[in-house]
Amino acid sequence: MSQKVGIPKGTRDFTPVEMGRRNYIFNTIKEVYRLYGFEPIETPAMELLSTLLGKYGEEGDKLLFRILNSGNFLQGVDLAKLDPNKFQELSGVICEKGLRYDLTVPLARFVVQHRDEIIFPFRRYQIQPVWRADRPQKGRYREFYQCDADVIGSDSLIHEAEIVMMIDEVFSRFGVRVEIKINNRKILSGMANRINRPDLLTDITIGIDKLEKIGIDNVKTELLNKGLTEQEFQTIKPIILLQGSNEEKLRAMSVMFEADAEGKKGVEELQQVLDILRTYELKNQLQIDLSLARGLNYYTGCIFEVKALDVSIGSICGGGRYDNLTGVFGMPGVPGVGISFGADRIYDVLEQLNSFPESVSRSVQAMFVNFGANEVIFAVETATRLRRMGVAVDVYPENAKLKKQLNYADAKNIPFVIFIGDQELKTRSYGLKNMVTGEQQTVSFEQLVSKLTQ
Amino acid sequence: MSQKVGIPKGTRDFTPVEMGRRNYIFNTIKEVYRLYGFEPIETPAMELLSTLLGKYGEEGDKLLFRILNSGNFLQGVDLAKLDPNKFQELSGVICEKGLRYDLTVPLARFVVQHRDEIIFPFRRYQIQPVWRADRPQKGRYREFYQCDADVIGSDSLIHEAEIVMMIDEVFSRFGVRVEIKINNRKILSGMANRINRPDLLTDITIGIDKLEKIGIDNVKTELLNKGLTEQEFQTIKPIILLQGSNEEKLRAMSVMFEADAEGKKGVEELQQVLDILRTYELKNQLQIDLSLARGLNYYTGCIFEVKALDVSIGSICGGGRYDNLTGVFGMPGVPGVGISFGADRIYDVLEQLNSFPESVSRSVQAMFVNFGANEVIFAVETATRLRRMGVAVDVYPENAKLKKQLNYADAKNIPFVIFIGDQELKTRSYGLKNMVTGEQQTVSFEQLVSKLTQ
Repeated sequence: MSQKVGIPKGTRDFTPVEMGRRNYIFNTIKEVYRLYGFEPIETPAMELLSTLLGKYGEEGDKLLFRILNSGNFLQGVDLAKLDPNKFQELSGVICEKGLRYDLTVPLARFVVQHRDEIIFPFRRYQIQPVWRADRPQKGRYREFYQCDADVIGSDSLIHEAEIVMMIDEVFSRFGVRVEIKINNRKILSGMANRINRPDLLTDITIGIDKLEKIGIDNVKTELLNKGLTEQEFQTIKPIILLQGSNEEKLRAMSVMFEADAEGKKGVEELQQVLDILRTYELKNQLQIDLSLARGLNYYTGCIFEVKALDVSIGSICGGGRYDNLTGVFGMPGVPGVGISFGADRIYDVLEQLNSFPESVSRSVQAMFVNFGANEVIFAVETATRLRRMGVAVDVYPENAKLKKQLNYADAKNIPFVIFIGDQELKTRSYGLKNMVTGEQQTVSFEQLVSKLTQ
Repeated sequence: MSQKVGIPKGTRDFTPVEMGRRNYIFNTIKEVYRLYGFEPIETPAMELLSTLLGKYGEEGDKLLFRILNSGNFLQGVDLAKLDPNKFQELSGVICEKGLRYDLTVPLARFVVQHRDEIIFPFRRYQIQPVWRADRPQKGRYREFYQCDADVIGSDSLIHEAEIVMMIDEVFSRFGVRVEIKINNRKILSGMANRINRPDLLTDITIGIDKLEKIGIDNVKTELLNKGLTEQEFQTIKPIILLQGSNEEKLRAMSVMFEADAEGKKGVEELQQVLDILRTYELKNQLQIDLSLARGLNYYTGCIFEVKALDVSIGSICGGGRYDNLTGVFGMPGVPGVGISFGADRIYDVLEQLNSFPESVSRSVQAMFVNFGANEVIFAVETATRLRRMGVAVDVYPENAKLKKQLNYADAKNIPFVIFIGDQELKTRSYGLKNMVTGEQQTVSFEQLVSKLTQ
């Protein structure tokens, strides 16, 4: 019996054309990671729920996909005692595994588990899918890839500088103009300290994070609601809104934070990153943005965010430094700094800008037309010679109508078609048609190679 | 509070060294697929259980990993009515998704779902993990990658010939000597027809499949138990054990199957595949093996299997032709032929033969020793120039003890170390140490480039 076909909501199939584009994105990012000494790892799609639970907040726990235990998962469960409203209780009993929710917790688990084999500082990258039971909507999926790079076990600010370089290099390769924003969490702490409200650091961070979206007046309302006084707000407002060049901002902040060790440290760290970048000619603008906060609580030093200049789509890359990646797994005091490229958004940006190279949606360079059993033997022989030279070719498998064969080449975006008829077979030559220009000529094998590889 | 770390049984982490080796395997296979015109697709890790169930037999259904529905999965479930022994019934209610079990059913679903966009014949490859709740044991995992290529929508035997070429090419690239076995399911049918026992075709196939493992006498016992007579067995025995060159086997079979259309067709198909391969110089032996049966019922034409000659490990690659990939999804009459490389076993073979190229476990070509803030600026500047030329380099991030820095380079298998001290800084030169030979010299930037890229 036949059945309807479909896939779970929020998931996607990727066709060859989409794969060509996605691989272009992944390969570009991988190549830059490689140049900077990052090495790949992979972790299992399934992690133990004990590894995942409690790491993403209450909301995150709800968004985990849980995997039913194999075999009789009800063994030992007293159904009579179950309250159907306490489904979460039951899920803890009948599921011990879940799909990974991000690549950071698996990295922390990996570092702890392999601490004795890992060479620190550990520069790893990881490009794998993650799963979240989010409500699917435009641009938000239940299965999507993350492209993370982190350096674990080093405090050096060289990594922050290299992260800026990598961002600059990746988007240059994509031909996408971006603005790279940098800030430092210690400056946010310095602000809170300066008004003697370190208790409100998280609220201030969350408030400032919304500046671009809701404007300074709404941020003010929110912060006053959280308990900031008008005067306290007026003290930090000029810092948040500080304008000018990076040097001007750093100079102004040096003065502001003269008396606060933490704020001062943040300014110094930004200064050092800029110093290391001095000899590097950035192709994109790097801008200190004191309103950049990034929601995640675990950042402790420099933070980064990247916006496309020519497409309005939100952040397409972000990251920062953290102090305690692995503490929750019993290995305290391991610092790190990391970055993550948003592949799906980058895909949309490249599509909107029409910036995918033509070559990424083309995998075959030429197709041999099939005129019958004898001709095809010569076609296969030539195809083998071309393939041994690295040229990808199709031999059309059936002696179908020419129109059908040419339609296939056209639909697959194959740039050249090769005819082998009676005459060509006799003289061991080839009819070569350029599918773009329509130009057709008879060529020798050497000419064929030169046309297909030029 | 800290907690124990671990991963679900039967799953694996892959370290950078393992990733280098695995990517070498995947990239080699991908490159050969590409040369033969195959294009990549990807499908979601999760499929609807309605897609997966009933496709892998009763045993397969049990081995599916099921994903608990999000939210209150117990809503509408009458717990009082549940029999704890009927856990499978409940799992059908609380789970609607499962992890994919192989790449063939998702391919069939993909072809039906995208039938209007796909250009047939559809040459696709897919390299993704699959999940099975099997009992884990040496070499058998609950998460593992499959590397499949299939041509959908074409009866042409060119594809069979090209599959043999791809197998030959992949293992030549790996430097692994293999024997490629080929047979045709129609010949097995012919055998059953010849003794007028088409009813026993499946039993004969399953019996013959075990020949290598249990020997001809045990196969005989098994077949007689299934209802074959002594005389019937004596009739097919010489076919199963047929020896000689491929040509001799084909000739003998032509005579045997003169009166049986199906057996004859099988012989002709094998002959045609060999004809198409005539101009192709195989580097490995292709052998018609009439005892090759391959368990899966859905094969209908040529079947393939590959064994390593220098390592005893079972089949490392296999595949065949099928007639009805998508019938179960309401799209009948779609033929195809496919192949699958066993990446995990190939890994073991390459490891045992010590055949991984040295370069695959090395990602960085040189490391800059860090002698302090001033020196490191010049190191970063030089690193940038090298990276822009495609050379991957590390800058050691801290001014740590030299021994520690060199140990890092050593442990990461980095072949060159670059020193920038006072003197080098002044003259803009570099101390270059070859970590393998221990040789050390002072070089200019141009000499550095030439050393690192040779």
